[in-house]
Amino acid sequence: MKKILIVGGVAGGATAAARLRRLSEEDQIILFERDEYISFANCGLPYYIGDVITDRQKLLVQTVGGMSKRFNLDIRNFSEVTVIDPDQKTVTVKNHQTGASYTESYDKLILSPGAKPIAPPIPGLAEAKNILTLRNIPDTDKIKAVVDSGQVSRAVVIGGGFIGVEMAENLQELGINVTLVEKMNQVLKPLDFEMAQLVHQEINANGVNLILEDGVDHFQNEGHEVVLESGQVLKADLVILAIGVVPENTLAKQANLKVGPRGHIVTTANYEVFIGENDAVNPDVFAIGDAVEVVDFVTKTPTAIPLAWPANRQGRLVADYINGKKIGNVGIQGTAVAKVFNQTIAATGNNAALLDLKKIPYQVVVAHRSNHAGYYPNATNIALKLLYDPQTLKILGAQAVGQEGTEKRIDVIATAMKLGATVLDLQDFELSYAPPFSSAKDPVNILGYIAENILDGVYKTVQWHEIDQIVADGGFLLDVRSPMEVRAGGIKGAVNIELDSLRDRIGEIPIDKDAPIYVSCQVGQRAYLAIRILKGHGFTNIYNLAGGFSTYKTAHYQLAALNFGTTAK
Amino acid sequence: MKKILIVGGVAGGATAAARLRRLSEEDQIILFERDEYISFANCGLPYYIGDVITDRQKLLVQTVGGMSKRFNLDIRNFSEVTVIDPDQKTVTVKNHQTGASYTESYDKLILSPGAKPIAPPIPGLAEAKNILTLRNIPDTDKIKAVVDSGQVSRAVVIGGGFIGVEMAENLQELGINVTLVEKMNQVLKPLDFEMAQLVHQEINANGVNLILEDGVDHFQNEGHEVVLESGQVLKADLVILAIGVVPENTLAKQANLKVGPRGHIVTTANYEVFIGENDAVNPDVFAIGDAVEVVDFVTKTPTAIPLAWPANRQGRLVADYINGKKIGNVGIQGTAVAKVFNQTIAATGNNAALLDLKKIPYQVVVAHRSNHAGYYPNATNIALKLLYDPQTLKILGAQAVGQEGTEKRIDVIATAMKLGATVLDLQDFELSYAPPFSSAKDPVNILGYIAENILDGVYKTVQWHEIDQIVADGGFLLDVRSPMEVRAGGIKGAVNIELDSLRDRIGEIPIDKDAPIYVSCQVGQRAYLAIRILKGHGFTNIYNLAGGFSTYKTAHYQLAALNFGTTAK
Repeated sequence: MKKILIVGGVAGGATAAARLRRLSEEDQIILFERDEYISFANCGLPYYIGDVITDRQKLLVQTVGGMSKRFNLDIRNFSEVTVIDPDQKTVTVKNHQTGASYTESYDKLILSPGAKPIAPPIPGLAEAKNILTLRNIPDTDKIKAVVDSGQVSRAVVIGGGFIGVEMAENLQELGINVTLVEKMNQVLKPLDFEMAQLVHQEINANGVNLILEDGVDHFQNEGHEVVLESGQVLKADLVILAIGVVPENTLAKQANLKVGPRGHIVTTANYEVFIGENDAVNPDVFAIGDAVEVVDFVTKTPTAIPLAWPANRQGRLVADYINGKKIGNVGIQGTAVAKVFNQTIAATGNNAALLDLKKIPYQVVVAHRSNHAGYYPNATNIALKLLYDPQTLKILGAQAVGQEGTEKRIDVIATAMKLGATVLDLQDFELSYAPPFSSAKDPVNILGYIAENILDGVYKTVQWHEIDQIVADGGFLLDVRSPMEVRAGGIKGAVNIELDSLRDRIGEIPIDKDAPIYVSCQVGQRAYLAIRILKGHGFTNIYNLAGGFSTYKTAHYQLAALNFGTTAK
Repeated sequence: MKKILIVGGVAGGATAAARLRRLSEEDQIILFERDEYISFANCGLPYYIGDVITDRQKLLVQTVGGMSKRFNLDIRNFSEVTVIDPDQKTVTVKNHQTGASYTESYDKLILSPGAKPIAPPIPGLAEAKNILTLRNIPDTDKIKAVVDSGQVSRAVVIGGGFIGVEMAENLQELGINVTLVEKMNQVLKPLDFEMAQLVHQEINANGVNLILEDGVDHFQNEGHEVVLESGQVLKADLVILAIGVVPENTLAKQANLKVGPRGHIVTTANYEVFIGENDAVNPDVFAIGDAVEVVDFVTKTPTAIPLAWPANRQGRLVADYINGKKIGNVGIQGTAVAKVFNQTIAATGNNAALLDLKKIPYQVVVAHRSNHAGYYPNATNIALKLLYDPQTLKILGAQAVGQEGTEKRIDVIATAMKLGATVLDLQDFELSYAPPFSSAKDPVNILGYIAENILDGVYKTVQWHEIDQIVADGGFLLDVRSPMEVRAGGIKGAVNIELDSLRDRIGEIPIDKDAPIYVSCQVGQRAYLAIRILKGHGFTNIYNLAGGFSTYKTAHYQLAALNFGTTAK
């Protein structure tokens, strides 16, 4: 019989408690939760505020009573663990209802304290009453009460991460005028810049006032005015602060646990913590969830991924380990998805920005494809970007923005990544096809086919952010779209010869056959066919503009300098 | 410069032609199509008849003119290849417009003749004018004309395969009274019996009259009456014969190509055919698509899988091979999906019925799970069944029936299968989670968790079709649902002790701790928790009813002998 204490009753902590009981009827399991609620629907909170989830009861996935009964647990809410004594193997617990403190001994201790919203000391923040953050049920109740009061006609959401974007959407859908402020030049960091532009379009199209590359300087008028660094003043009945989260590590620091550069608890692959001056592994204290550092599955470097899947998985695995099961820990990919109005945004692994930062080489594959057969009603486009290691061909990451079926493609790629697949393996995946669901060549297959072309040396790729300079430097850019498409917009300096007349007009290309030639079309598909023709006619140094004019145009969505103008020939 | 002839201009043939041209600008490529249209939207035909696709033009994915121009092909429609002379390397072509025949030489010949609907010599068939099959555009036009005439108030669809079910749905949605007749005891053979029952429910719920285990004896009254083997007479203004397809192998037989037991052209892994008395490999003649035999990816046995994905994939690979590329051919899984009214049915690999037939041992995992977070609106149930090899733990196949997100789970599993994953690997897949898309533990993860429990010896499984006999023979079946659920129906002979009171009432279980005990609940999840409690109290020989009462009840949907009655205790 072991006595196991768990600190934190949401996601990881609750999962660990249930799993511990399943693995042992005998162990004494005590779950401490500082707040009132355990195991609530964290990810559902914005949707309750937005009246999409109308029944508050539904947010309470497990109640203290119900979970205690089912899993024979000693659940103590309003109970904050304030001190760990790893030598005595005790914790000090403060009961916030009685004010009393007491100690409790443990054989094993699991820390699952989570992460909390960043609230930097912005001038004017302390005086404001209308500036709220969203982490738990009480936060939700507070925001909901303000919103339901009918006094909110203008809201400002600060921070364009998942929670910020979801809050902006939910408030906007309630009829509130929402401004979303983001310090970076894009929302949703798992996306690369040009992919995020699709989300910016969707956010703007749904009436949210999106302000990028601007941050809060201070609040004034008791928070009813948000003054940005640019000087712009936003009036706000409600301000949601969603800049990001930091690990809840007060207890960890008190106990002298080893933490990473951003304060995350460092653990072994078995989730054991390091304690004390010598950073010795403590075999009886574990940490899981948003508060811990994890290993990036792709790059094997330390990172932090505050998502529900890892927290749940770690909760299970730590319970397994404590009960003598061997566990694997291959790191976390960080697969994520968000709904933004009618759009689905999904990503897994590393994006190009992150790989650039880590100086990891990668090759890019971009595809724009229908989610299902084009001839079947309501087909919508999915923009896909995949990155792979040019040496090993292993997939490093992928992003997708679209509507129905978007996260399906990322799930397939995430699965392939976890199993160590190369980008060429994507060609052979037999995915469900009927007209309402996909095409005989699924978009995932297409990514593999494009990669094969690159690897076979059929063409090299050039990115949207490189092409303007190339053309300015005299590079020859061939646009093989129809003249009608070209008239609707194109890349400055491109020469238009339509694909279907390319064989007849190939003599019009005014460059040597070994000189570089850059080919573009709408999404890259016709450019590819043109490239095959060019190769067949002796051209040897051919580049395909990844994602075609579609990616180029999207990427330039908010760049003022945009000046479209292809020369029709 | 090679001269390549292709016989058949749909799916495989058209794909091969386009790929051949991409790989070589120089080769002479002639595509023969017996009918008028090439590369049409085969899988879209039922939806055009059902007015879901309203523009006939959309069915013509590639036109003769457009494809000839773009890919510089010599496309000859209305041109039937009637003879192959492999010694002279020529074919004889009959032009159906002029009636003239001519020979054409080849360096390489690709056969992609497809499959055709079975039309057995049923008495009365020849005299009928209202009995139609669906394979191509002319067939579609014929059916559409009959339907649009307004003269069809009653239709009979014969055959419950994909086409039969899709036709039944599309006709019913037009307001026609549809009867669907199937000779077997279920529709959609890729599903196991109990999974197919969910589809039967959906078909019935949408007003189609579904008749199982009955076949056509004869037609009378010029096809306006369908007389079944049971004697039942169905009046019909329109009859769709969709019993299945057979390979179009007249040409193959003429040329003395080796064919399999059901007439499919046998090929090497590089799609080369075998010709003549000695079944010699002919390096210049290839066959692809619905007409060929393929290797089952899972069991490595010969099979035939007339689906679009393999045809397209083979079209590409055969072109690659002819152009000197090394190709892989690991066999076909047969991943398939169908929409049936509001239901999505998807499957990959082998089902239990097929594995039984091949005498391949398997272990079953069943889960009923929400497609997304239960607290987010419009969550729907997905029934999942997965089969794995008890020795290697490799996944043998999976089936799913549900609504949104159903085929996503099969695509993930199909990907895992292709990459050689074991059932335990499913636990570690990091799949997209946000409330509108999934749960923190995706249903695919859950399948892995259930398998782990079985492998760890936590319990054994018992199937829905075994439990009645076990109880009849005195086996102890414990139903841990709530008394309210039990009152709404249960398995005869079961004893009810609700999960949450099991610890207190464990003494009421009247059997020895090493005697077998069978546990059930609604879907298997609470039974699992009960099993953990039973194990903790010394029981050693425990079975979980796979899929719980939900699977049991569904499986008994059409079994007259059903007699629910759990004893409340």
